[in-house]
Amino acid sequence: MQQALKYAAEQATRFEQELFDLLKIPSVSTDPAYAPHVQQAAEWVAGQLKVIGVTAEIIPTGRHPIVYGEWMGAGPNAKTVLIYGHYDVQPADKADGWSTDPFEPVVKDGVVYARGATDDKGQFFTHLKAVEAILKTEGTLPVNVKFLIEGEEESGGESLAQYVREHGQRFAADVCIISDGSMPSVDTPTIVYSVRGIVGFEIIVHGPATDLHSGMFGGTVHNPIQALAEIIAQLHHPDGSVNVPGFYDDVVPLSEAERQMIASGGGYTFEQWQQTTGAPADWGEKQYTINERIGARPTLEFTGFAGGYAGQGLKNVIPARAIAKGSARLVANQDPQKTFDQIKAQVERLAPPTVRVEVNYLASGLPAAVDVNHPAMQAAVNAYQHGWGYAPVFKREGGSLPIVADLNNHVGMPVLLVGYGLDTDGIHGPNEHYALSMFHKGIETSIHFLYEVSKL
Amino acid sequence: MQQALKYAAEQATRFEQELFDLLKIPSVSTDPAYAPHVQQAAEWVAGQLKVIGVTAEIIPTGRHPIVYGEWMGAGPNAKTVLIYGHYDVQPADKADGWSTDPFEPVVKDGVVYARGATDDKGQFFTHLKAVEAILKTEGTLPVNVKFLIEGEEESGGESLAQYVREHGQRFAADVCIISDGSMPSVDTPTIVYSVRGIVGFEIIVHGPATDLHSGMFGGTVHNPIQALAEIIAQLHHPDGSVNVPGFYDDVVPLSEAERQMIASGGGYTFEQWQQTTGAPADWGEKQYTINERIGARPTLEFTGFAGGYAGQGLKNVIPARAIAKGSARLVANQDPQKTFDQIKAQVERLAPPTVRVEVNYLASGLPAAVDVNHPAMQAAVNAYQHGWGYAPVFKREGGSLPIVADLNNHVGMPVLLVGYGLDTDGIHGPNEHYALSMFHKGIETSIHFLYEVSKL
Repeated sequence: MQQALKYAAEQATRFEQELFDLLKIPSVSTDPAYAPHVQQAAEWVAGQLKVIGVTAEIIPTGRHPIVYGEWMGAGPNAKTVLIYGHYDVQPADKADGWSTDPFEPVVKDGVVYARGATDDKGQFFTHLKAVEAILKTEGTLPVNVKFLIEGEEESGGESLAQYVREHGQRFAADVCIISDGSMPSVDTPTIVYSVRGIVGFEIIVHGPATDLHSGMFGGTVHNPIQALAEIIAQLHHPDGSVNVPGFYDDVVPLSEAERQMIASGGGYTFEQWQQTTGAPADWGEKQYTINERIGARPTLEFTGFAGGYAGQGLKNVIPARAIAKGSARLVANQDPQKTFDQIKAQVERLAPPTVRVEVNYLASGLPAAVDVNHPAMQAAVNAYQHGWGYAPVFKREGGSLPIVADLNNHVGMPVLLVGYGLDTDGIHGPNEHYALSMFHKGIETSIHFLYEVSKL
Repeated sequence: MQQALKYAAEQATRFEQELFDLLKIPSVSTDPAYAPHVQQAAEWVAGQLKVIGVTAEIIPTGRHPIVYGEWMGAGPNAKTVLIYGHYDVQPADKADGWSTDPFEPVVKDGVVYARGATDDKGQFFTHLKAVEAILKTEGTLPVNVKFLIEGEEESGGESLAQYVREHGQRFAADVCIISDGSMPSVDTPTIVYSVRGIVGFEIIVHGPATDLHSGMFGGTVHNPIQALAEIIAQLHHPDGSVNVPGFYDDVVPLSEAERQMIASGGGYTFEQWQQTTGAPADWGEKQYTINERIGARPTLEFTGFAGGYAGQGLKNVIPARAIAKGSARLVANQDPQKTFDQIKAQVERLAPPTVRVEVNYLASGLPAAVDVNHPAMQAAVNAYQHGWGYAPVFKREGGSLPIVADLNNHVGMPVLLVGYGLDTDGIHGPNEHYALSMFHKGIETSIHFLYEVSKL
């Protein structure tokens, strides 16, 4: 391992140049006009895999290809690591506020500025370079390795989700590592051990057959805006908890130990939360801390409401319908379909006979949580400790990353979210950047990780 | 009077031809492209006034002119009648579904089809022809007469409102008659004795400083959509009454006699209400009938709600703000400003400390109600009885007609809404039409009305 670390240090400049080559490819997955560049990036990654000594296959999908590669030379008795990443990027245009061309990487004070620098090209590439460093110096790896690098993470990820459902066993491994995240500061590496699930829905309240004049019919018709507001208002208790029977039935309760871990983890201080949100005061389940509410508790949020006319001036209308869109964020062991059924039943229960109510399912993703005491988790802790130089904190993520649940639940392995970026790297915005020191620390951590997994 | 009625019968065909000439002028007030035609219509009306023996003045305004004329030959001891009407019309295009050109009047089975046939050219013109018939046969009128024919009724009416505020005493009279309405059937003439006032407002709920990710912050921020829904849900009691302290303080209670009058008046049967609205069930203050709720009770309706994203799919956002627009319809003796202050105070009282709430005033109009026992009302009843051939019913109108309150309150006179059209005349839509028999009945009724007022 020491030879591999030495090799990585010696090849640092070349590794950076290779990353810059990848950053120059505008692999924007949302915009069909960039499809040739997305394909080019897939081929570039496949080429790199071959160069470092790993097989490479470009798997076509309905949209953007999946790049898959493996090195199984450690044999059937050795552990296997699945490395996930994505080679596609968010859109970026110089006019959005970039100081330099987003697809012409520029290094300033040891930081590279380019779209995808940290999300996710700079991060997933550390694992390729770690594998290269070990293979080139040792001629072998301490574990089998599979690479799964997709091209639709920034645009829904549906092709991979479908592929995993159909061919997930190709990706079977003892542990999956994903470096596509961030830490609050360079001395606080963060392992995300839980992501929330989601189920999206819409509620449509139908009232009169057509829009009515508010003067001619006001006071005799149950206004759909009001009826929908009344339903929404009843879906939370005054204490901030969700008023949907059964909603919390499958929630795994937080242990005292986990609450302490969350309290000492990389979450928000109240002041940070206040500064980030700008909200007048916090709201929600007061018996849980803000970080617990974000990561460890299910929520029900309304993300859209439309009815009647809310533009300039005033229109004297009782609208025929009003619509609200929303989603529940779920934690282990909640099930999106079951939660949707509960919400639908409760809305129908609350709906008065003066209107007709429709509740439609929109989308869903499973929650996932990895036991922090799983042995693989200890490998990641040790890798950070030795490769990064600091012990990590553990964090529950409030957002949803369906691939984690797909791999965790469909393929059946612990998924470790081991980010090598900073919270302030500016992902999805202008001037996205990545410290080259973190790129190299990431490579070292990945080298350590592969050796740590071999000891499990 | 008999001579005048005879004259009107003899001149029927000429009267119709004159009306058709007016209907040919496309005096669409909302569309600036039609401004020359609006001016042309004003000049046509002024010319007619002069021909029948009344003074005529075209009063310029910031937009469309007001036509004013008077005949004061009955002397200072005689009664004075103000006749209001409007010579402008709604837009109309053959492509909207008209069977014939909307500005080429066509008579079919005794019914004239043209834009403005019933709203309001055909109706206000009856009063001119009534005055002509009396003046030509008697050489004098039993009362003084003032004509106020405006050109902005279909586009806000603000020029006249301003003129009434500044020069309202020019229009002073013992009674104002307006024929710009309709009856459910030809044998049920309808006197509208009350129109509701209105005060429009908006409620804006501000939450976080910017839109937030619903996964990253859901459950810790009071979602503005939810907070606004909670406020709206509290603004009505479960019994359908408005939960705003003081809201009903100035409402003149309905007497048992008036309730009986409303019950026997030209309102909706429950079946008609159901068919017109298509709502699953009625809603509101159950201790009042549907017609009472529409015309005699104040209401609070939400006419618009917008927050977050409610288009196709789902956007994972907690919006920074949510907005609702609404209006209260007011009955005598409620005051729009006072009602606005009460709503604002209540919303501020209901607003939780987790959000910031803004309540803004948008627009208002005063309510108006004329005592059905006022002597002038009896003149209208007798005129319908003798001229139309049927006794009228009395109705409270749910909508707002600010000119009624402006004349009633600013100038100080009872305003009688004596419609000569049918509910089914298709105003504002394609194939607007008017039965010529009703045109002639209107002229006869107007002749009777002027004599009836002279007896007061």
